Amino acid sequence: MSLPGTLASLIEALRALPGVGPKSAARMAYHLLQRDRPGAARLSASLSAALEQLRHCRRCNNFSEQPVCDICASPRREARQLCVVEMPTDLNRLEETQAYKGLYFVLMGRLSPLDGVGPKEIGLERLIERARDGVTEEVILATNFTAEGEATAHYISELLKTRGLQVSRIARGLPAGGELEHVDGMTIAQALHDRRAA
Amino acid sequence: MSLPGTLASLIEALRALPGVGPKSAARMAYHLLQRDRPGAARLSASLSAALEQLRHCRRCNNFSEQPVCDICASPRREARQLCVVEMPTDLNRLEETQAYKGLYFVLMGRLSPLDGVGPKEIGLERLIERARDGVTEEVILATNFTAEGEATAHYISELLKTRGLQVSRIARGLPAGGELEHVDGMTIAQALHDRRAA
Repeated sequence: MSLPGTLASLIEALRALPGVGPKSAARMAYHLLQRDRPGAARLSASLSAALEQLRHCRRCNNFSEQPVCDICASPRREARQLCVVEMPTDLNRLEETQAYKGLYFVLMGRLSPLDGVGPKEIGLERLIERARDGVTEEVILATNFTAEGEATAHYISELLKTRGLQVSRIARGLPAGGELEHVDGMTIAQALHDRRAA
Repeated sequence: MSLPGTLASLIEALRALPGVGPKSAARMAYHLLQRDRPGAARLSASLSAALEQLRHCRRCNNFSEQPVCDICASPRREARQLCVVEMPTDLNRLEETQAYKGLYFVLMGRLSPLDGVGPKEIGLERLIERARDGVTEEVILATNFTAEGEATAHYISELLKTRGLQVSRIARGLPAGGELEHVDGMTIAQALHDRRAA
């Protein structure tokens, strides 16, 4: 091998990205150096700016440039509701709907024992502390309906209920415009089970 | 959307990487910020070091920290042979075999009209100039046996032969250990066509 040192280091460093092995790392390095040097410069600068300026919001744990993020600092949000999501992208999806006016807590992950992610890694102690601020009346669990998201919701639910907090889970059922013919059986079973008075 | 500016910029900047869309870019940003801040710092530094220090070798066009790379500068290489490859990774594969002692020219790509990569983009003029240095006796085409690699080899071959240079193409045939039963028909046909006196 006769790679110049800086090139070998760059290929190695690109492997920090999730899902990037040695071959894609080399491909990425060549692409950046050969075809997109301005893009590479922007990426380097953005990484260092993000590392320097982004911290976690003290209240909701989301990424923020301020100690307390805009949502948590807003006087217009309903402070009695606290919605728990896995990732910042989930929070964004909820915000886009404009259907929720309460506050959030971002786990930055989900319980995943096989990957070594336990209650400590996703900051559940901070969530409990946050939820017991004396203002929160209801904690709404909006983790994903995957096996890990469900387990996380269940775990948090038990944790909070023993501390006297009201806990709810967002509904599972047919999606808007969903047709019985095209929805999987698990979803239909759940929609039947969770039926409401009409 | 309520993403802090530095986070939005980072996600946007990650899209400079080939094959990375908005969703993977977000996933990568969260992973780096949440799980691997040292990795993110290394990546930022490596990118800027590579941009600053890596140039193209004046003779072979490969990445190099010096004006002329180690291989081109070595007095122990056979200067009468010039092997043309698509990418630095291809050069490395050839070097690993220790079966070639000549010099190289790295195209940094292949002809790909559909992607707007023509003779100019892969520096064929520089290759011609390089090959006509008065020392080179044989140009060995080692581009890939893909449609684009074959077209590139064919194009270069025509270009150099009209200038009186001897041009060869690496052989296509059954791989070492290859069994007729398990090799594709195209390869067998080519191996038959290119048969040599035993």
